[in-house]
Amino acid sequence: MTIDNTALLTDQYELTMVSAALHHPVAHRPCVFEVFARRLPDGRRYGVVAGTGRLLDELAGFRFGGDELAVVSRFLDADTVDWLRDYRFSGDIDGYREGELYFPGSPILTVRASFAEGVLLETLVLSILNHDSAIASAAARMVSAAASRPIIEMGSRRTHERAAVSSARAAYLAGVAATSNLEAARTYGVPSAGTAAHAFTLGFAGADGPDEKAAFAAQIAVLGTGTTLLVDTYDITQGVRNAIEVAGPELGGVRIDSGDLGVLARQVREQLDDLGATDTKIVVSGDLDEYAIASLRAEPVDTYGVGTALVTGSGAPTAGMIYKLVEVDGIPVAKRSSHKESKGGAKSAMRAARPSGTIVEEIVYRATDDPPPTDGLSVRPLQIPLVRGGDRLDGLPSLGDGRTHLGDALVSLPWEGLGLSHGDPAVPTRYLLD
Amino acid sequence: MTIDNTALLTDQYELTMVSAALHHPVAHRPCVFEVFARRLPDGRRYGVVAGTGRLLDELAGFRFGGDELAVVSRFLDADTVDWLRDYRFSGDIDGYREGELYFPGSPILTVRASFAEGVLLETLVLSILNHDSAIASAAARMVSAAASRPIIEMGSRRTHERAAVSSARAAYLAGVAATSNLEAARTYGVPSAGTAAHAFTLGFAGADGPDEKAAFAAQIAVLGTGTTLLVDTYDITQGVRNAIEVAGPELGGVRIDSGDLGVLARQVREQLDDLGATDTKIVVSGDLDEYAIASLRAEPVDTYGVGTALVTGSGAPTAGMIYKLVEVDGIPVAKRSSHKESKGGAKSAMRAARPSGTIVEEIVYRATDDPPPTDGLSVRPLQIPLVRGGDRLDGLPSLGDGRTHLGDALVSLPWEGLGLSHGDPAVPTRYLLD
Repeated sequence: MTIDNTALLTDQYELTMVSAALHHPVAHRPCVFEVFARRLPDGRRYGVVAGTGRLLDELAGFRFGGDELAVVSRFLDADTVDWLRDYRFSGDIDGYREGELYFPGSPILTVRASFAEGVLLETLVLSILNHDSAIASAAARMVSAAASRPIIEMGSRRTHERAAVSSARAAYLAGVAATSNLEAARTYGVPSAGTAAHAFTLGFAGADGPDEKAAFAAQIAVLGTGTTLLVDTYDITQGVRNAIEVAGPELGGVRIDSGDLGVLARQVREQLDDLGATDTKIVVSGDLDEYAIASLRAEPVDTYGVGTALVTGSGAPTAGMIYKLVEVDGIPVAKRSSHKESKGGAKSAMRAARPSGTIVEEIVYRATDDPPPTDGLSVRPLQIPLVRGGDRLDGLPSLGDGRTHLGDALVSLPWEGLGLSHGDPAVPTRYLLD
Repeated sequence: MTIDNTALLTDQYELTMVSAALHHPVAHRPCVFEVFARRLPDGRRYGVVAGTGRLLDELAGFRFGGDELAVVSRFLDADTVDWLRDYRFSGDIDGYREGELYFPGSPILTVRASFAEGVLLETLVLSILNHDSAIASAAARMVSAAASRPIIEMGSRRTHERAAVSSARAAYLAGVAATSNLEAARTYGVPSAGTAAHAFTLGFAGADGPDEKAAFAAQIAVLGTGTTLLVDTYDITQGVRNAIEVAGPELGGVRIDSGDLGVLARQVREQLDDLGATDTKIVVSGDLDEYAIASLRAEPVDTYGVGTALVTGSGAPTAGMIYKLVEVDGIPVAKRSSHKESKGGAKSAMRAARPSGTIVEEIVYRATDDPPPTDGLSVRPLQIPLVRGGDRLDGLPSLGDGRTHLGDALVSLPWEGLGLSHGDPAVPTRYLLD
């Protein structure tokens, strides 16, 4: 993967803060910054950590070259520019692994560095974790709603062209089977899928009107009878008839992209079966979200195609994580005004589970304390080391590892935690910080 | 600007369609594809076109090199791969300029090309226009709500790190004064702004507790007394007192980032005035959206800092535009099934206004027809030529031109069109397509 320069993917104030701090010992004081979410999006029972792998990729590109220095020179003094020229993150990072569940207050990422080095990363860290976690959190609910039926992510056109690539990655982490996005296939190895749109069928229309059969034949000639034909460009019943007439009953699948998907899926299933195409799958798409997916559970649907709702976080397009300075020179610090109090001091976290494996609480305690006792419960520490001395550690969990981890973690939720209805977080967070 | 390769920022099915079409004359039939939105987001009165400039940038990078061909070779036949090796868009594009208002059905972009060349662009076109237009549309409402007070966009941390850059651009197009995002400053020349976060003040805390004055002094030493001090890390009243004590009454501004911003702005204004800092500005931030901005209209607020709501489109994170094949070989084509009917045939559009300048309707008519008569109304054609023979035309409107254009366009709306309340589009769209 080429590493783009990411140094300017930040807010100006990170740099003015560095500049102001550099004239004081403050710049070099050892600090701890923490990423957490004060709350989950409205009514959500859990969040899914995603983006950590991308963050570590982009951290490597967070260096100030000549071009970047020219930009920041417009508002920074020469000393700061010199410092940035030599800047390379040299601190330590621990965090929840990708695919880990999180709850309000979970210390998702802990950055240990000098004030100046750590403060610079705030925007990059949050942009990546907030976006990717929002997508993965929404996608995980869709995967649950689909039970074991596969979901294809096809939302690229409904989000920023680069966010689309990261969304496909986050969706795959969350258990989605494949993506339409080719850059995600290239960059992250996400399985890609896709056959044809309505434009293809329309393209075969001529002076004599539509010619759906010609379109189907052309597609099958290239993609084989295992392909999926889009049958709702004109009339669905005729479309299905044309599809089987052209492909034979070995046709891989048909896709329905509009209308009352439940009713249509039943009709089409019946028609396919009558035509002997009993193994032909039915793919449905068209404004599906986790609720629509769940509502189709009793219908003969084989695969869901999900777009807009997935890539926009299904109502929660950002995860609301924040990056807070919690410790300076070993002393806890915290904002005190208004309702936005934070809990100072570096934290560790563990998750307690019954012998059955069902989790019961998230426990957040001081990093300097021993883990608290938990009678009769098994516990699992939640942070893993990611970066030491600025270097990404070897052997970190892969995207596929995260996908497996999340699958296991979802099984550990109390049963109400997998419900789609609004409610409290699936388990409470207990703070042992006094 | 370096041009990244954008060829894989697309959906797999665009390529399988090309592959299937290439074995038929269909691939080379002259086609017209149109971008439009069937409706505006719930209750919105207008949309703002944004992203066209970025699209033309990225179109130049939409070429298949060795790396890209290796990826698509996994699922495409050799003939298609050969065709892609030589692919360069050679068609024509017309469209609404950036900063133009749009309404349901407005033909925002028209692509004239062979089927194969045109179908390839669907995902890239929609990703960019849907994202940027969603952000610009939300931002324009915020700018209206702020009346003439400036808005600083500071939402980078709440969206994908690359979407953040495009969001800053779209927000600037919509009239926002500045961005926190440095990459947007570099790439698009958007004015950047920013001073300090709570972490900065917290960083000066020591064994003896907080030292807000030391933090303020350090900031002023580097940024001057014209800077803006963040006064709500500990106690706001004390924070304001400290700020003026350190900076003197010439302090540029104070920022309040939490609490009841209206109440606090009044208190702080009074306190500043009492301290003789009558010219010190008040910047407010913290979960502002267009409604919160409007609700602060009567308060002594000088500048708004807006984050999450802006970069997530304030409830409408995607514009819902679609890319449809509307004409093949001069023959109108349209999908017919279900409720998603489209209107076939290439279209032109114009906007009719009263002599006062107030617009009354959007008129969409066949591109091959003469513009319809509009008694007593002035009309303005809405599409401009953007690309000819694959080449971007010279002298297209700049980002700044779009910003000015939108300012003028908003003034032309009927008065209810600028309201924040939910309602119908500000003007109806009249179709003359029979």
